[in-house]
Amino acid sequence: MADLAPAKQDRSRATRQRLLETTIRCLAQYGWEASTVGFIAAEAGISRGAIQHHFRTREALILGALEHMFEERAALLDALPEPSETGAARVHAVVAGLVETIGGELFRAALQVWTVAAADPALRVAVVPLEKRFARGVHRRAVRLLGADDADPEVRALIQATLDMARGLALAGVLTDDSRRRSRVVRAWSAQLAAALSAA
Amino acid sequence: MADLAPAKQDRSRATRQRLLETTIRCLAQYGWEASTVGFIAAEAGISRGAIQHHFRTREALILGALEHMFEERAALLDALPEPSETGAARVHAVVAGLVETIGGELFRAALQVWTVAAADPALRVAVVPLEKRFARGVHRRAVRLLGADDADPEVRALIQATLDMARGLALAGVLTDDSRRRSRVVRAWSAQLAAALSAA
Repeated sequence: MADLAPAKQDRSRATRQRLLETTIRCLAQYGWEASTVGFIAAEAGISRGAIQHHFRTREALILGALEHMFEERAALLDALPEPSETGAARVHAVVAGLVETIGGELFRAALQVWTVAAADPALRVAVVPLEKRFARGVHRRAVRLLGADDADPEVRALIQATLDMARGLALAGVLTDDSRRRSRVVRAWSAQLAAALSAA
Repeated sequence: MADLAPAKQDRSRATRQRLLETTIRCLAQYGWEASTVGFIAAEAGISRGAIQHHFRTREALILGALEHMFEERAALLDALPEPSETGAARVHAVVAGLVETIGGELFRAALQVWTVAAADPALRVAVVPLEKRFARGVHRRAVRLLGADDADPEVRALIQATLDMARGLALAGVLTDDSRRRSRVVRAWSAQLAAALSAA
């Protein structure tokens, strides 16, 4: 019986992971209104009671899922090696990676929450610190991957502009698949950013 | 009695304008779910019957309001004079103007519609052509105001990148007032764009 507890723990962790991933998928695919605890429970194959054991309210579940996924994305960026070279090719690879990290299913899920929060002050209070922490984390990682000097206010503003552009591209990709346009935009801006960083 | 008809027409036009503006304000301020025809009617001081005379469904009212406001914004851009000079100052003024045109209350209202449309294929089919037309219109006007050569694919991609950045800034501004950060980002971006346009 001695090794039953760890096995149980593993199962509980796996259940939690499935719950959080399902929450993100439901938000991204079916939207805020459809993503009730009952709907998510059915999609995840987990009882409502088991969900309420982890998260007492729908908002807690949704914000918990966003936070968890933000952390997973940040960990992916952390796992990337330090840039071994500088130059335009490296900048392009980093910008393309940032655009990919910021976009996709997690963006579509977060967009549902941001949009409701935009018109709901109580939800906004809970969302803003989470969003700020994620934005700061992505900025810090972008600085490291670009090997840039963030103390230079010009460089700092250009990296912020790059992340704003990535967010705008993600928003454009929500309604239509514009991946070809996105590649052209990423390439053109990366060349400018590379020139600016090497001049700084 | 001869001049009663035009006066009536003026009143009807003014009512319609108030209805469309109220629809945008309700979406931006209270969100999609709250913005029912009944709620908008009460906010505008117009009877539901009068609204249904102009727009048969809630979706028709909301899409009609977005289209009308997009056209008003485009007309504002058209009213701006051709740039009398080139150079970094002019590029900065144009980019700041584009960021202002793309952001604000109209963006917050459109965001509510895009986000619901992202998870609602039927609404998406109606929204995508409207959004594409607006995006193309803004792009064309940006090219004119910047005095840029849109036949150059590099220039074209950079102007698209600028509009994506503007959309990303607008999205960031939905949850918090980050107007100071926005100014820094616009300044840094504009300097790069100006250099790229003068080199092209």
